[in-house]
Amino acid sequence: MIVPVKWTDEGVLMLDQRLLPAEEKWLVLRSYVEVADAIRNMVVRGAPAIGISAAYGLALGMKHFVGTSQTDMEDEFEYVADVLSKTRPTAINLFWAIERMRKTFQQAISEGKSVSEIKHILVEEAKRIHDEDIKAQEKIAEYGGRLIEDGSTVLTHCNAGALATGGVWGTALGVIRGAKHQGKKVAVIADETRPYLQGARLTAWELVKDEIPVTLITDNMAGYMMKTGKVQAVVVGADRIAANGDTANKIGTYTLAVLARENKIPFYVAAPLSTIDLNCATGNEIPIEQRNGREITHIRDIQLAPEGIQVSNPAFDVTPSEYISAIITEKGIARPPYEESLRKLFD
Amino acid sequence: MIVPVKWTDEGVLMLDQRLLPAEEKWLVLRSYVEVADAIRNMVVRGAPAIGISAAYGLALGMKHFVGTSQTDMEDEFEYVADVLSKTRPTAINLFWAIERMRKTFQQAISEGKSVSEIKHILVEEAKRIHDEDIKAQEKIAEYGGRLIEDGSTVLTHCNAGALATGGVWGTALGVIRGAKHQGKKVAVIADETRPYLQGARLTAWELVKDEIPVTLITDNMAGYMMKTGKVQAVVVGADRIAANGDTANKIGTYTLAVLARENKIPFYVAAPLSTIDLNCATGNEIPIEQRNGREITHIRDIQLAPEGIQVSNPAFDVTPSEYISAIITEKGIARPPYEESLRKLFD
Repeated sequence: MIVPVKWTDEGVLMLDQRLLPAEEKWLVLRSYVEVADAIRNMVVRGAPAIGISAAYGLALGMKHFVGTSQTDMEDEFEYVADVLSKTRPTAINLFWAIERMRKTFQQAISEGKSVSEIKHILVEEAKRIHDEDIKAQEKIAEYGGRLIEDGSTVLTHCNAGALATGGVWGTALGVIRGAKHQGKKVAVIADETRPYLQGARLTAWELVKDEIPVTLITDNMAGYMMKTGKVQAVVVGADRIAANGDTANKIGTYTLAVLARENKIPFYVAAPLSTIDLNCATGNEIPIEQRNGREITHIRDIQLAPEGIQVSNPAFDVTPSEYISAIITEKGIARPPYEESLRKLFD
Repeated sequence: MIVPVKWTDEGVLMLDQRLLPAEEKWLVLRSYVEVADAIRNMVVRGAPAIGISAAYGLALGMKHFVGTSQTDMEDEFEYVADVLSKTRPTAINLFWAIERMRKTFQQAISEGKSVSEIKHILVEEAKRIHDEDIKAQEKIAEYGGRLIEDGSTVLTHCNAGALATGGVWGTALGVIRGAKHQGKKVAVIADETRPYLQGARLTAWELVKDEIPVTLITDNMAGYMMKTGKVQAVVVGADRIAANGDTANKIGTYTLAVLARENKIPFYVAAPLSTIDLNCATGNEIPIEQRNGREITHIRDIQLAPEGIQVSNPAFDVTPSEYISAIITEKGIARPPYEESLRKLFD
């Protein structure tokens, strides 16, 4: 059972995903600054896991608040929230978790709770966000598993597994685990997912642990696999889903969606409601993070490209909703038109 | 001016492309066995360059023939040809070059040439194959360059440059160099091309040398670049083109073709006639090489995936001709329907 982030009285425990699969090393993050750095540097990644980590970061930051006045505490909360919110721009779960923590904080303030009570309330709220995420994934696994036919090979991209979430099931890998849990035979083709290799390093690691058959390919082989009949469904996670269903996810997802439609293969997105941003009308409004070019030009210290080469490194792309067969959430499965079906999930 | 393979009296000189861009090291291959190994191990790669190398390998093998009888010489020729023909299966240029050498050899035999004359004839024929390839590329550059509009950014995959051919122009990069030569402003987006990174290592290296602006991306970013309007044309090389225009090329090419059509971007294949296999009716008949999984799981000694993971490593895919806007050859530009237009090029 993989749970990549945990609250302890000492601080936030985090599995250092940069070192997987070679090494399983846990870090103890003792301040919100360390949590923010861990999110920024991808010790933890994956939209739901980023949200949970930010919630724990906020709870940890406030736990260390040393003042006594309500006003000072409110200032401190906003300061810590601001630092955490600037770590990564695309995954909406980060902002969703911070906003939820803010509401809880403000309610506690308005109810006249003491500083120490509020600290406790924030820790409990962060844990609740985490627990609810794991429960949401269990439902995603149940609903999504039903969409996978017995004997299918499912292609997935990046890591939308236990490591990318609160743990245990995962979103896209939750669907695969759900299908297996329902007694179906299921195999996986995992894209390695350059440049950060979350597929090769993390998805492969999770599935090997679970003894689910997995074949690793490079990203540019996905089309060949689909065209030669080796893929029965594509399932991916999401970093932000707009109100119309347009979905930001790891770079390369759009390409898979186009290939899936061309080859008449269903293309599913699996994500909790915390990933859906109804304030974003379409995918055009989703900010796309540009990361350091060194992720592409080097693997550790090995130089892969000529000195001084210009690089573009967008970390995400947007898949227009027209390519998406269904969006699997903990409240059920949304189908087109997504403007209606996604909004209904929140009722 | 990049020429990756050269004939010398000592043996075949070959630039070790495995070490680029970090190191420019030339190997002297003193036997046909060394040439065969160099092809197999990708010291040299790229369909036209493989053909030329095989021709030189044959000439070198026969140069070392120590017998005196015609029959022994014919046996030796077939033995050397067989070893060379088993190095790599997909690029037709390998078989084309061997067949052309065979015809020259058989004609010399039938004309009653002496052993030493035949040795000389074979070296001259291999050099001629090399020279003709460079001239073919110059024409490809001229014809193809006309298809590129001034101010375009061209996306290319793998390396179909000077390094992949007899040298100087290249096929896909020939088209880009041709456009520049015609006074047009042209920029390039180069896919890194996993697993062997020919784009990051070789194409980027060639274009930096030529001072053509190049931006390196990972393969899974090509869709994003097309969808966001950053690509005006896609140009790739080919390893084998069937009579109906179906084109085998580096794995990932099919994906680019699908993405290009989806985004209404022209998709061009550039290749000399020696890459066209009229004996192959469709792409279904083209053998696809499966290479060692270690190319995917490791970069040099760094392990990227869990121990014992199953890997699929097809080196090529087939792009159906319906996705190809034009095939650029030294005899002109073929347009659909390719059954007719390709055959006409050979008249």
